[in-house]
Amino acid sequence: MPRVVVSVMPKPEILDPQGKAVQHALPKLGFDGISDVRQGKRFELEVDGELTDARLQEIHDLAEKLLSNPVIEDFEVVVHEDTLP
Amino acid sequence: MPRVVVSVMPKPEILDPQGKAVQHALPKLGFDGISDVRQGKRFELEVDGELTDARLQEIHDLAEKLLSNPVIEDFEVVVHEDTLP
Repeated sequence: MPRVVVSVMPKPEILDPQGKAVQHALPKLGFDGISDVRQGKRFELEVDGELTDARLQEIHDLAEKLLSNPVIEDFEVVVHEDTLP
Repeated sequence: MPRVVVSVMPKPEILDPQGKAVQHALPKLGFDGISDVRQGKRFELEVDGELTDARLQEIHDLAEKLLSNPVIEDFEVVVHEDTLP
C-alpha cells in the first residue's frame, strides 16, 4: 500500500520553545556541537489504491488544512521511499 | 552548516492515539481513502563543523538517548538533502 510522509515544521521566523529546550539540554547531557534544534511533526499516511497526481494533490490539501497551521508552520509532502517504483 | 533530520515514530505494534484521532477526523472533513495515519516527531539539528562518521554516530546516540524512547519508538537519522554534496 502506498505511503506518504507529511513533515510539518515551525516556520524559521517562529520561536520554537520545544526545539530550544532540547538544544539547551544537549550540552548538559554531554552532547556538544549542535548549534540549533527545531522540533516538528511527522505523519505517515497509508493511501488506498493508486497514488495518482490527483491523490497527491488531495493529500497536499489535507496537509495544509488539517495537519498543519499555515500561519506558523511549513509542511512538505513526500512519497515514502518504500512506495517509489 | 550541515543539517541532520531525526525522525521518531511510534513502533508499529504500539497504539498511536494521535494518529488514530487524525485518521477518524479525515472522512468527516471530506478526505477519504486514507487507511492509516501514524504521527511522530521530526527534529532538524544544525551541526557545527564537518559531518564526519564519528559526528553522525554521536547524533545517532543522542537520538537514541534523548530524542526517542527506544521502548515504544523507532528513530531514523538522515543527513538533510541541503547538506548532501
